[in-house]
Amino acid sequence: MTEQSYPVSPRNRVKRVHERGSYDHATVHGILDAAMLAHVSYVLDGQPFCTPTLIWREGTMLYWHGSSASRMIRHLATGVQACVVVSHLDGLVLARSGFNHSANYRSAMCFGTTELVTDPEEKLAQLIAATDRFYPGRSASLRAITPQEVKATAVIRMEIAEASAKIRAKGVGDDEEDGNHPVWVGVIPVTTVLGAPVASPALLPGLVMGADLAPYVPGRRLDQALAETQEVYARG
Amino acid sequence: MTEQSYPVSPRNRVKRVHERGSYDHATVHGILDAAMLAHVSYVLDGQPFCTPTLIWREGTMLYWHGSSASRMIRHLATGVQACVVVSHLDGLVLARSGFNHSANYRSAMCFGTTELVTDPEEKLAQLIAATDRFYPGRSASLRAITPQEVKATAVIRMEIAEASAKIRAKGVGDDEEDGNHPVWVGVIPVTTVLGAPVASPALLPGLVMGADLAPYVPGRRLDQALAETQEVYARG
Repeated sequence: MTEQSYPVSPRNRVKRVHERGSYDHATVHGILDAAMLAHVSYVLDGQPFCTPTLIWREGTMLYWHGSSASRMIRHLATGVQACVVVSHLDGLVLARSGFNHSANYRSAMCFGTTELVTDPEEKLAQLIAATDRFYPGRSASLRAITPQEVKATAVIRMEIAEASAKIRAKGVGDDEEDGNHPVWVGVIPVTTVLGAPVASPALLPGLVMGADLAPYVPGRRLDQALAETQEVYARG
Repeated sequence: MTEQSYPVSPRNRVKRVHERGSYDHATVHGILDAAMLAHVSYVLDGQPFCTPTLIWREGTMLYWHGSSASRMIRHLATGVQACVVVSHLDGLVLARSGFNHSANYRSAMCFGTTELVTDPEEKLAQLIAATDRFYPGRSASLRAITPQEVKATAVIRMEIAEASAKIRAKGVGDDEEDGNHPVWVGVIPVTTVLGAPVASPALLPGLVMGADLAPYVPGRRLDQALAETQEVYARG
């Protein structure tokens, strides 16, 4: 196998329905890049916490940011084990038995140790990435970031040490002997889509959306728009 | 205040942008009931794990299920602290500064101690709820659950000891002094919607979707369909 993969350990090995699991960078990163929202789990005084957070990726590094004063950020800045999860619900799977009901989904689970980004240049670059990764080129059109804003914001990074992807993307998995049971069976697809933009009442007259927002076409799937903006951003 | 609320402690108090936080049952349960997918966080040997899971609610009790053999389930069956989070992304908020970019969202964070459901009657009732809460009345039309399936599945419950909701649902929050900066500002709504059902190739001829699936109208928002089915199910 020449493609790059994350190492597999007891921590990230997909045990249940293991044929749904994979570890290669392309699959894991594809799931991450199709999302804006992740769930970051960590332990504080023995208690698990899970914080929904905007994340972005560069190579095998995940980034997120928050108020320098937040409990989560101050804790993660000390360098702790974290588990960062992205999941997409893709469909409701209706079978002939309760047991075979399921869902179609794509999820990525990443393990690593968090770090505070302390280098001023890397920090500034990542604060810009927090906008430009989602809206490529937008930061150049914005009011520039101020030193106070840089100070008020902390950037956390986590090198992905281990990761796994888990995907179910198929039809109903009924037991063969249930085949004559008379009930509707099938899949109801689920997608997350973009709506028509609502301009701010404070929008200056004559201003239209720029190229930075071109991927966000009304009716389009959010995951596809995000995958596209990641590609545009990564190309530079 | 006569409405019921979850108690507030340092664990669940919303500190950052605290005006977005609330603790009343109605708000927290409304966010939970609009979702099928939650993220369950727990600690195993000091390591945080976060598992995307289907959850359902009865009163202040959360339920989920899994293979009796799964690592998560066997650990949670021992009775551990967990943090269960539901989040809905509702919009992308584009401001005149990177700092004021944001997202509209609804999230609920629930803390409690997990328990294995051991009473056979409660377990069976909850295995049925796992179908009927989402597709009211469907279990009566299915091939009945077998003793082997009951044995292979574990049901976990968690009384919500503390919870908080956090909601952002508004327009752009630009700084006043940025008002003349010439860039498009506004909100791009995000919704998760149902697609047209795809019948299984093994569907018996002449069978149509029943009342259990009536709320899942193509094009409808998933959160609204789930809120409706929870209401129908809770009414009995």
